[in-house]
Amino acid sequence: MNPREIIRKKRDGGQLSRQELEFFIKSYLASGVADYQMSAFLMACYFRGMDLDETTALTEVMLRSGAVVDLSSVPGTKVDKHSTGGVGDKVSLILAPMVAACGVPVPMISGRGLGHTGGTLDKLESIPGFRTNLSIQEYRAAIGEVGAVMAGQTAEIVPADMKMYALRDVTATVESVPLIAGSIMSKKLAEGIDALVLDVKVGRGAFMKTEADAVELAKTLIGIGKSFDKKVIGFLTDMSQPLGYAVGNWLEVKESLDCLKGRDVPDLMEITYLLGGAMLMLGGKATSIEEGTGLCRRAIESGTALDKFMQIVRRQGGDVSYLEDFRKYPASKFMIEIRSPSAGDIDNVDALELGLAAIMLGAGRMTLEDGIDPKAGIVLRKKAGDAVEIGEPLAALFTDSESAAKEARPRVERAFSIATEPSVFPRLIHSMVDDRGVHPWPVVNARK
Amino acid sequence: MNPREIIRKKRDGGQLSRQELEFFIKSYLASGVADYQMSAFLMACYFRGMDLDETTALTEVMLRSGAVVDLSSVPGTKVDKHSTGGVGDKVSLILAPMVAACGVPVPMISGRGLGHTGGTLDKLESIPGFRTNLSIQEYRAAIGEVGAVMAGQTAEIVPADMKMYALRDVTATVESVPLIAGSIMSKKLAEGIDALVLDVKVGRGAFMKTEADAVELAKTLIGIGKSFDKKVIGFLTDMSQPLGYAVGNWLEVKESLDCLKGRDVPDLMEITYLLGGAMLMLGGKATSIEEGTGLCRRAIESGTALDKFMQIVRRQGGDVSYLEDFRKYPASKFMIEIRSPSAGDIDNVDALELGLAAIMLGAGRMTLEDGIDPKAGIVLRKKAGDAVEIGEPLAALFTDSESAAKEARPRVERAFSIATEPSVFPRLIHSMVDDRGVHPWPVVNARK
Repeated sequence: MNPREIIRKKRDGGQLSRQELEFFIKSYLASGVADYQMSAFLMACYFRGMDLDETTALTEVMLRSGAVVDLSSVPGTKVDKHSTGGVGDKVSLILAPMVAACGVPVPMISGRGLGHTGGTLDKLESIPGFRTNLSIQEYRAAIGEVGAVMAGQTAEIVPADMKMYALRDVTATVESVPLIAGSIMSKKLAEGIDALVLDVKVGRGAFMKTEADAVELAKTLIGIGKSFDKKVIGFLTDMSQPLGYAVGNWLEVKESLDCLKGRDVPDLMEITYLLGGAMLMLGGKATSIEEGTGLCRRAIESGTALDKFMQIVRRQGGDVSYLEDFRKYPASKFMIEIRSPSAGDIDNVDALELGLAAIMLGAGRMTLEDGIDPKAGIVLRKKAGDAVEIGEPLAALFTDSESAAKEARPRVERAFSIATEPSVFPRLIHSMVDDRGVHPWPVVNARK
Repeated sequence: MNPREIIRKKRDGGQLSRQELEFFIKSYLASGVADYQMSAFLMACYFRGMDLDETTALTEVMLRSGAVVDLSSVPGTKVDKHSTGGVGDKVSLILAPMVAACGVPVPMISGRGLGHTGGTLDKLESIPGFRTNLSIQEYRAAIGEVGAVMAGQTAEIVPADMKMYALRDVTATVESVPLIAGSIMSKKLAEGIDALVLDVKVGRGAFMKTEADAVELAKTLIGIGKSFDKKVIGFLTDMSQPLGYAVGNWLEVKESLDCLKGRDVPDLMEITYLLGGAMLMLGGKATSIEEGTGLCRRAIESGTALDKFMQIVRRQGGDVSYLEDFRKYPASKFMIEIRSPSAGDIDNVDALELGLAAIMLGAGRMTLEDGIDPKAGIVLRKKAGDAVEIGEPLAALFTDSESAAKEARPRVERAFSIATEPSVFPRLIHSMVDDRGVHPWPVVNARK
């Protein structure tokens, strides 16, 4: 087999065999295929795509490039959640302890924020002392003891993805469904899951801008899962405005803790309960999503979810005193209130603009090397559907850089649109996707 | 400007500005853009193409990456010919001395054979002592003295093309019209031409398999030429069977010398006279292609073209004694006659199959590093339209390797198809292309 001929075959729209993909990727890791051949191949994949057989083979080759965590010693069905990324999406921080508190083990390997979206690792690391770079041994020990673990990808797990992702990032080959799917599923399969719930975001603040792209990705992920005998279901959810009110790492930890204490942030908790219900159903602790959602509500109300979160934080070296008293945390040098220039009803709060504004304030990174300021970000005072008076606060910006605040301000102002006519808001939960297809939501007892 | 964003822009079908192309290619030469970014960019160009403004800008940036030869001290309009490559295409060897003998200087920078097609440099170098790696000084001196020079690309000329072509070769990004056009025209413009005649091959043995692709390439080359104020016209010619009878380096030199001595090999000489006529017209020595063709015929008949060829060979270090007595040249160890298995009329002699068979015999290379055997190749005994009896010779194979002969034999046998019904042969000259469009050939006095 010849690397050039494999690139040519994909370029010309051919279907690659498992042997060809294995040869190409293994040779790449052994430096027999050069970076410049891999990047040409990735661009050909961008244009030609891959069918499900190819994507499954790609996933398997990537998966087998490194260690696969064996969690068979941990009793129960291990279930994780994956979100395709959004703005203000702190669901994992509430969901993992909530589901673990209901008795389903949650082995969770998350990523960092990139572009306009935040990352679970960055949020957790804003808690002083919290360690996400666990070895496989530490990871297994933590889930065995606590029932949930929230960590980053180690070099032992899916090295092919680490090397390929770094290359995709600098060669404009990130946005390809089979490459995204292979990257996600190889990592999820390597972390030792039995089942997976997907939160595929759609809208201005999501990577998938259209419903069709989101459905294609969901179906691909579900198809790969099926080939590996894992139960996977997905939900398409709205990401036209941020989830909850906080955007920024520590700000989102605080909001998550409030929710774990029982505060109802409607959109955030609706999605969290839905995903939790689905995880409990897949984990065998509930016979339907509805029943699972009920169990999750009780875990919040009873405080067991909050206790579980504190356990996770302590187990991974985090200092819970900051969570017990938020005032202990350092404050941003500047807090700037953005006020409404007119009166009316808020039509939309643009998630993409806010995500980009949050980066400017220091909350995110444009390249993997950039540092971040955990305190920085935005807290919304109003969301779509809220009435507002002239001069009323719309949002507060938190930053240590006055010039950054100046730069971000017009972007945040632009993000708010005031309705002149009655608004139609996108539904928060668009649909459920499983191996039988796409189902409008709500569906009563879909999996009974 | 950011390399990734330039790749993304092309990937998404955007039109790149001159500044963006200049930044990207200059950074590549200075290693600010990595090989893996260039190859992803080249693959995006393969899929998205480039419009004429972009292709012209690409050509100019490549051209200015190195030295541009100044031939203003050589009197007259300098005219070259470029062929997109074929099997048995030894036209340049006859054409350059013929046109120079008529008083038009021919500065010719050629390439090596690659894939199933031969290269003028390899053919010339089969003449003992012939040097093609001239410095710019030697190149200028040679054309000044002799009126024609036949050399290879030096490292001083269009280094961007050298670096990019090596990358395209191993990343399956060769077959792209704007990339091919930029590569050809940057080299032709760098060699100091005033005008150019193109021989764009179409058919099984050509790189451009369809008429539409060939027309697109011709129009692109002509459009670039116009932007640089160079007169360029092109001919689309048939490459479904080899040109002439010989395929292989020394074998083709011998056939060329026979033609220079007055032997009429119909398809080979029809194209050679046509291209020569066009070169004399562009060079101002004839008022029409027909008149130019007449002058070329007289240069052959009078022996001045042959004398000019001997002058070129001597000037570039070649030993003319081998040309004066072919028997002096070493012979291949094996000469195998292929005989016809049936009687009938030959329908076609597949140029691609013969080109590939010639490589097997040692006449060509599959990668740039492979060595070649100058003696090896194939001499056809029959061509399309010829009648053949059972057992009559179809072709002779020349090689030093018995196993190669065994391997090549079935390919050569397969190349000959015997007609069962009356055949319709493709026309040798399909059309002429100039800046006004495509004209069916013959066109009487098209440029008068």
